[in-house]
Amino acid sequence: MSKINLGNFFEDFEIGQKIIHPLPRTITDGDVSFYIALTGSRFALHSSDVLAQRMGYKKKPLDDLLMFHLTFGKSVQDISLNAIANLGYAEVSFPNPVFVGDTVRLETEIIGLKENSNGKSGVVYVHSIGYNQDKQEVLNLKRWVMVHKKNKEQISGIKHIPTFEKTQPITRNINIPKQKDIDTSATGGKFFFEDYITGERLNHPEGITIDDSDHTLATKLYQNNAKVHFDDFMMKNTPMKQRLMYGGHVISIARTISFNGLENAQWIYSINSGTHANPTFGGDTIYAYTEIVETIEHEREDIGLLRLRTIAVKNQKSEEIESPKAEDGNYLKNVVLDLDYTVIIPKRKTKK
Amino acid sequence: MSKINLGNFFEDFEIGQKIIHPLPRTITDGDVSFYIALTGSRFALHSSDVLAQRMGYKKKPLDDLLMFHLTFGKSVQDISLNAIANLGYAEVSFPNPVFVGDTVRLETEIIGLKENSNGKSGVVYVHSIGYNQDKQEVLNLKRWVMVHKKNKEQISGIKHIPTFEKTQPITRNINIPKQKDIDTSATGGKFFFEDYITGERLNHPEGITIDDSDHTLATKLYQNNAKVHFDDFMMKNTPMKQRLMYGGHVISIARTISFNGLENAQWIYSINSGTHANPTFGGDTIYAYTEIVETIEHEREDIGLLRLRTIAVKNQKSEEIESPKAEDGNYLKNVVLDLDYTVIIPKRKTKK
Amino acid sequence: MSKINLGNFFEDFEIGQKIIHPLPRTITDGDVSFYIALTGSRFALHSSDVLAQRMGYKKKPLDDLLMFHLTFGKSVQDISLNAIANLGYAEVSFPNPVFVGDTVRLETEIIGLKENSNGKSGVVYVHSIGYNQDKQEVLNLKRWVMVHKKNKEQISGIKHIPTFEKTQPITRNINIPKQKDIDTSATGGKFFFEDYITGERLNHPEGITIDDSDHTLATKLYQNNAKVHFDDFMMKNTPMKQRLMYGGHVISIARTISFNGLENAQWIYSINSGTHANPTFGGDTIYAYTEIVETIEHEREDIGLLRLRTIAVKNQKSEEIESPKAEDGNYLKNVVLDLDYTVIIPKRKTKK
Repeated sequence: MSKINLGNFFEDFEIGQKIIHPLPRTITDGDVSFYIALTGSRFALHSSDVLAQRMGYKKKPLDDLLMFHLTFGKSVQDISLNAIANLGYAEVSFPNPVFVGDTVRLETEIIGLKENSNGKSGVVYVHSIGYNQDKQEVLNLKRWVMVHKKNKEQISGIKHIPTFEKTQPITRNINIPKQKDIDTSATGGKFFFEDYITGERLNHPEGITIDDSDHTLATKLYQNNAKVHFDDFMMKNTPMKQRLMYGGHVISIARTISFNGLENAQWIYSINSGTHANPTFGGDTIYAYTEIVETIEHEREDIGLLRLRTIAVKNQKSEEIESPKAEDGNYLKNVVLDLDYTVIIPKRKTKK
Repeated sequence: MSKINLGNFFEDFEIGQKIIHPLPRTITDGDVSFYIALTGSRFALHSSDVLAQRMGYKKKPLDDLLMFHLTFGKSVQDISLNAIANLGYAEVSFPNPVFVGDTVRLETEIIGLKENSNGKSGVVYVHSIGYNQDKQEVLNLKRWVMVHKKNKEQISGIKHIPTFEKTQPITRNINIPKQKDIDTSATGGKFFFEDYITGERLNHPEGITIDDSDHTLATKLYQNNAKVHFDDFMMKNTPMKQRLMYGGHVISIARTISFNGLENAQWIYSINSGTHANPTFGGDTIYAYTEIVETIEHEREDIGLLRLRTIAVKNQKSEEIESPKAEDGNYLKNVVLDLDYTVIIPKRKTKK
Repeated sequence: MSKINLGNFFEDFEIGQKIIHPLPRTITDGDVSFYIALTGSRFALHSSDVLAQRMGYKKKPLDDLLMFHLTFGKSVQDISLNAIANLGYAEVSFPNPVFVGDTVRLETEIIGLKENSNGKSGVVYVHSIGYNQDKQEVLNLKRWVMVHKKNKEQISGIKHIPTFEKTQPITRNINIPKQKDIDTSATGGKFFFEDYITGERLNHPEGITIDDSDHTLATKLYQNNAKVHFDDFMMKNTPMKQRLMYGGHVISIARTISFNGLENAQWIYSINSGTHANPTFGGDTIYAYTEIVETIEHEREDIGLLRLRTIAVKNQKSEEIESPKAEDGNYLKNVVLDLDYTVIIPKRKTKK
């Protein structure tokens, strides 16, 4: 039996199967510096221990997306090494904050399988949960990927498709400290929950060019070993002709760009759904705009939630894009990300 | 009112105005590793806790320039986002050492305004002070930038130009521990204050090529969000045709190169003036030479100061440059930095 | 006397000479994050404090190769700045683990000198020992480099060649905690000492492309200042026409790639010999295969050793290479590394 792990194929999965992904990771200040260097992120809560302590934390918590990448990356070897495409995300939530020094790991249950009619591949639906060293949940997500079959002749006809919430339900308990007296001279933003209205659109002016070293350093840091991101020699013989950028890095860049206009929305509550509409490559410049889809009151008096849709565009100013899709319903060729997510933002009235 | 922050224009500033820049930053070991990886810096005091403790510190202090970048970067959003050019620096000093774990922030006062005669722009003179979490000054600097006007028709005629010291005066108190018994086998240099003479020139032999990923990682790490450094798509439509390197990174590379011949000059006392003579781009190789402009005795017996002029040159060996300026008084086209600064260096006679 | 350090030439060395290399280095979490980002390394022991503690360590030890690079880099200025070629390594061992917070330094003794018959250069043989802050050995190595002579007319005829062990002898004491109950769901590998047989070959499927920023960031992080790695302007005028990658980075990439099939071999016992068969440049994609040269029993019952030969290949799948050398005994043009080393791996039978 070969000692080489070639990853799992469609036939290797079964409903209810549980996988403990290898490679627990202790998160360090080095990871946090890398995240800032790779994205230019400017959300103040993740930048300053002094500010974080004033906001009720023991020290600065990790940016939710950095935690996501470091935790999620572990599932690639077992789930998506032989993936043809990462089809979608749903019900991604961030139940507890993560801090430098914490050790994260990931477990997955197979919750759906659908063989494609051509017999060559199938869709695998998974539910993954990330834990810290105290067994607290730090990440909870569902996703589905299209995976190659080993034996393309043998048809099983399996079709077990789970259903997903359109948006993550808003729970009573939100695990962030009580927010008051936000120091807007530190966060850099003067707008709060009450200032945003449904349908409002924010054209973020910044653009960030991503070079090949940037996205491959990011993906290696996350110990995500999907070959398409690293092996330029192999990729030159594909229609893409070059390394494909890890979609998660595009999400992080879009989130960084969205800072301008959403400075006080420092927590991601959930990612409701996400589509990588087109591939992104080294050398592309990313722009983004955000629509306020819904303003959501919470029973806590100090915070509210904003459901957002951030559209990331490559090599075109985001203000030139009216809608991410053409009349035929297909994404415009420069649109690279359509992200539906919910953020937490303090209320103005709790300010003194 | 738009929630998008487009930065300040010339008319948005007034004399005496005070700005607290957002985004306090807790400095970590991750930042220090990045600085070494980005520059290759070899000054031993910033590399080893053991050596730093032997030299009287609780642990290794930050390289002055790393602290400068991390602190200074915060002013870009408010001061120079709409800058046409960063015209100059003066009276830059480093009053107290900074250590990993410290949190730095920056405040600025507008000290001068001069509208340009064409009515399209003006020069803003600022005095910025960086503080640590204990409100100790860690950076004190003046600079002036040319900024776009919003309304190019309306002429104010404002002309309030501050004066600057040609060099930072040498103060009685210099905040470094008493230096004795310098371990030259650890610092890598055997020359001390007494060994340098006015007019001496050091042709540093090393050259360092800077790629686009390097300088954009650096500038994102510093949370400096000036668009010219990041947005290649936008820059392709400018005369530069590509991203412009952050001038501070060039200063750091020049300082790193100056290690060879100045190994024991581990502290920058002040930057007296600095000119980015020509732009630097990804792919350029930087060389440098240093002239000893002045040797300055200090009342402390263990140290002296050297006023230095380091000239950084791109894509040409520094020894080929006799003077950074041509006969017409203009900088040679390959000269990228003319830096007048003062460093602290131990005296030999205090060695046992 | 010039203050510029131009490095040592062949005539500057003498048998028995001892050199204390400058620049002690305190290793931080930032260095560890960089190593993961630069290589994508996935050996779990170096990734998780929780796992490391379960395996008997106080916290996660450094990857042996990261420690090697950070320690070894110090010798370049004194030994190999004027090297024509890095000819070989022998007897490289890793006597004690290194942890974040430790400070490493390096000392060297000249153990051999052989002038080349053309009188233009000579080979310098050195024995270098790395120490931590408690004077414990953390690295012990011999290497030989070809170095330019200053005076090419004067012939000394010196010929003093030391002998080297073909492989590092296996000692009674191996300084790692007792291994039992290895958590294979954390390490990602289910194979142990007993599973490997002499002559077995592992074709590791992954390929990693290395960009110029990657390898220059690595080498600057290690404070290795050999010009050939950094100065593209200078290198354009050489037959290589570009910057040469630090061979140590290629070793690290090959080791990372070898993870797939050797997941539980988390300790390098020794490097017996290493040849950089051909140069590697930015943009090259590295593949690798490993042969099990010997399985070595140890008197400890919990571990065994595997002598391995890992061959790294550029821009060609490793499975296409049958042997690294052609019939004429020369290395194939795509082979970049031929590494003979010994790793420690737990035994299966000690698992409960």
